[in-house]
Amino acid sequence: MISEIGEAGLLQIVQRYCPSQVVGDDAAVLEAPKGQLVVTTDVLVEGVHFSDLTTPPYAVGWRSVAANLSDLAAMGSRPQALVIGLGLPSSTPIAWVEELYRGMQACSAGWGSPLVGGDLCRSPHRFVAITALGEVPPGRAIQRKFAQPGDWLVVTGPHGDARAGLELLLHPEQGSSATAAEREWLIKAHQYPRPRLDTLPILDGIPDPLRMGGMDTSDGLADALVQLCQASGVTATVDEQRIPISAALRQVFPEQALEWALYGGEDFELLLSLEPGVAQQLLDRLPGSVCIGQVTGWDPEGTVRLRGGGILSRQQAFQHF
Amino acid sequence: MISEIGEAGLLQIVQRYCPSQVVGDDAAVLEAPKGQLVVTTDVLVEGVHFSDLTTPPYAVGWRSVAANLSDLAAMGSRPQALVIGLGLPSSTPIAWVEELYRGMQACSAGWGSPLVGGDLCRSPHRFVAITALGEVPPGRAIQRKFAQPGDWLVVTGPHGDARAGLELLLHPEQGSSATAAEREWLIKAHQYPRPRLDTLPILDGIPDPLRMGGMDTSDGLADALVQLCQASGVTATVDEQRIPISAALRQVFPEQALEWALYGGEDFELLLSLEPGVAQQLLDRLPGSVCIGQVTGWDPEGTVRLRGGGILSRQQAFQHF
Repeated sequence: MISEIGEAGLLQIVQRYCPSQVVGDDAAVLEAPKGQLVVTTDVLVEGVHFSDLTTPPYAVGWRSVAANLSDLAAMGSRPQALVIGLGLPSSTPIAWVEELYRGMQACSAGWGSPLVGGDLCRSPHRFVAITALGEVPPGRAIQRKFAQPGDWLVVTGPHGDARAGLELLLHPEQGSSATAAEREWLIKAHQYPRPRLDTLPILDGIPDPLRMGGMDTSDGLADALVQLCQASGVTATVDEQRIPISAALRQVFPEQALEWALYGGEDFELLLSLEPGVAQQLLDRLPGSVCIGQVTGWDPEGTVRLRGGGILSRQQAFQHF
Repeated sequence: MISEIGEAGLLQIVQRYCPSQVVGDDAAVLEAPKGQLVVTTDVLVEGVHFSDLTTPPYAVGWRSVAANLSDLAAMGSRPQALVIGLGLPSSTPIAWVEELYRGMQACSAGWGSPLVGGDLCRSPHRFVAITALGEVPPGRAIQRKFAQPGDWLVVTGPHGDARAGLELLLHPEQGSSATAAEREWLIKAHQYPRPRLDTLPILDGIPDPLRMGGMDTSDGLADALVQLCQASGVTATVDEQRIPISAALRQVFPEQALEWALYGGEDFELLLSLEPGVAQQLLDRLPGSVCIGQVTGWDPEGTVRLRGGGILSRQQAFQHF
């Protein structure tokens, strides 16, 4: 338990996961980003966002970093560094903290964003508060308000898998028809989401000027569609049959697949609103990306229509309170 | 209660405290800092760092921002922006959240560091996780490892008041001899600490080259002295009679004054290790600053001796676990 090694002992352990030149002071000193500075923060709470039942500590670390890097990707920005705030009961096993940091480091290392500092404190419940810093060339930030009539709506990958993975973790008796590989695919989607930073070099390769609308789909694809349209004051039509759904999800949960793709959340893909010519270049170059609809006009309400009928609302989306 | 207005309603409220051009996306876009980027994070947990008994929500907001700005001041850096992660039970009164943000804004506004974003989430208990971004000219960062033999040890102001204020809040029957003004002075020191960013323009006015050792005294002056000496591998002698203690503290708690000045914590002053010539210029220009001792030699153990006898240790300092 961390109460046995105290704060100094715990600090020694977590500092192994940070570059030695930035730790040991009241704050970390970093090189200033080229271009503009992008900053985002995400909080994960035990019992709300993760539990020992569904998420081993390594996966908690991975997911908490992935959620932040996804926010940076959604802004079109490259990660530069991460800082970690951690609340832990004194009874937390030391191994839990080490696994958490191993998971955070594994996810961040792949995208070159070191853990440069943090704060540890005692808390009745475990929580992880991560802030990610990134950089974006001036004028190249992706924003929700930049969607315009005529744009194509592109998603970078399949939706619903993370929700299905959670279902299998919470109710292992579900999906009894699933093969081991299908089960693993869906559970991995929940525990180890990949922030779509791989999209950025492709967008970089498309010549200026770009006006890119977009956000990530962490709170669900339906939520992202409505938020994007509301922020831009546009209306869109989405062909729900074109929403990419994995073979595993279709196979194991055929009844729920579309609902989870729309409302499941935590897939951490990007939803982008791009001029058709730009969208086509992205579709040509990013395997798995799909055009699921089009912005059809201005609309202060931000109405999103489904091709099959009906209007999307945020009501069914994940509510944090 | 925030459960009645939901996440969207809560977001509307807190976004009033942020500049409108930076909110509404997955992350905030800021101008890159001139010089180097400095980043720090601090977590405050209800029941550990604050409670309704000792800290009204406005003061929770003030103190949580002040703690972060103090870390920036301790690095010699100017604040640029703050991001706020917040964990709240659904039963939290809306007024509590508004007061919290009013307090955060009041503290941050004085030093020109806007709240540029954050994350709100449900949690079984309240916590505030703040990350502060700042900037420092290249090579001018204050660091713990920069103390050298011959340096004078300077503190920017009195110590022990915050601990005394906490005592009066927890045990109102204590300090019955205190006047209303003394009581208010000590309680204010606990609830509304001022980060010592006012020290930076004075240090700026002292010509290059500067090698400034230092840190803040948020975990207690004794802790800061030992940490500074350990990080620099030096030994120091401190004259405990010269540690600045307010008239109010001496009057109300004469017995405990020195112990609280050394071990109380949360005074958020700076401890600086400076060449005598530089130290003298600071002492001349910063009212209330005092030289309390001197670095006397190299020592990998970082031993801190008191002039009256005895060796300071971190053992008595605030332990987070």
